[in-house]
Amino acid sequence: MNLKDLILKNRSYRRFNESHKIDISTLETLVDLARLSASGANRQPLKYLIYNTPESCRRIFPFLAWAGYLEDWAGPEKGELPTAYIIILGDKSITEVFGVDHGIAAQSIMLGASEAGLGGCIIASIKREELREEHAIPDNFEILLVLALGKPVENVIIEEIKNDDVKYWRDNDKNHHVPKRSLSEVIIKL
Amino acid sequence: MNLKDLILKNRSYRRFNESHKIDISTLETLVDLARLSASGANRQPLKYLIYNTPESCRRIFPFLAWAGYLEDWAGPEKGELPTAYIIILGDKSITEVFGVDHGIAAQSIMLGASEAGLGGCIIASIKREELREEHAIPDNFEILLVLALGKPVENVIIEEIKNDDVKYWRDNDKNHHVPKRSLSEVIIKL
Repeated sequence: MNLKDLILKNRSYRRFNESHKIDISTLETLVDLARLSASGANRQPLKYLIYNTPESCRRIFPFLAWAGYLEDWAGPEKGELPTAYIIILGDKSITEVFGVDHGIAAQSIMLGASEAGLGGCIIASIKREELREEHAIPDNFEILLVLALGKPVENVIIEEIKNDDVKYWRDNDKNHHVPKRSLSEVIIKL
Repeated sequence: MNLKDLILKNRSYRRFNESHKIDISTLETLVDLARLSASGANRQPLKYLIYNTPESCRRIFPFLAWAGYLEDWAGPEKGELPTAYIIILGDKSITEVFGVDHGIAAQSIMLGASEAGLGGCIIASIKREELREEHAIPDNFEILLVLALGKPVENVIIEEIKNDDVKYWRDNDKNHHVPKRSLSEVIIKL
């Protein structure tokens, strides 16, 4: 698949087929894509925790915020939960400055997930201290991002932005609509 | 090309064939990949400036820091300069919080460049105020990253890290060596 098609396929998905299990080796392959991606000053301060069992996933889900714009929806329900997670940590024993390393890494991982027929969501809205306590994550690691992964069951439709309203929304058939700014809006001329 | 091969090809390149010109339409195609990538809360606060003429490139190059670990090398020389740039701005009229949006966007763009047979470097070490003044970038835009692009002429070799030394180095044949942490080092178990 060419990159444009892969990027189009790589939407933020929040509902999954919970019966679809993800192997640890798949998660390792995804982290390997991040490992081989760029890192500021090549410091490579990111570390990764990977989870693929129902029991371990249950210990991550409660600490994540889902789809802030969907006020009537608290997040995926039983049967549609993510079946794997990757937590991206910043190792403060290497540097205190992570720049955009975790953004680069997250994009590599999510593109890899899309290529593998999976999908998910990059989540930065995290109850970090509760998650740290639940998993006994040492203080020298900063919790940067959680990537929720699974086999998507939702249809995501990109559409033109109207009235500068960036809020995504769901129609009655549960299609998820995402307004995107146009190319002519984002490339500016001075 | 599959994603793993594309990510392996997508090294940080700092020497280019300066006779290789890059069309504006190519830069627009690259920004489009970023436009279609994930953005925190779908706010899409990133804006892009694109440059592909020798004259405009000359007005960006002096404000960038190159390859901090190569003490004897101040950056690419005449004949090996980048032939295009993309400046990623954060539009503060949309939000003051850009999260890792620019990391995600930069990775999409650099992967697209690699797919197109180009390459370059994500640069965060920027003389921001001088660059702002030179290009009359309004204060409501935060200068986040500069992506230097061109047709790479250097060979980049990934190798195993030794003695925890992350510094990249050049051999006598100008091959650029980049030590990478192993997968078993970056995936941690608690």
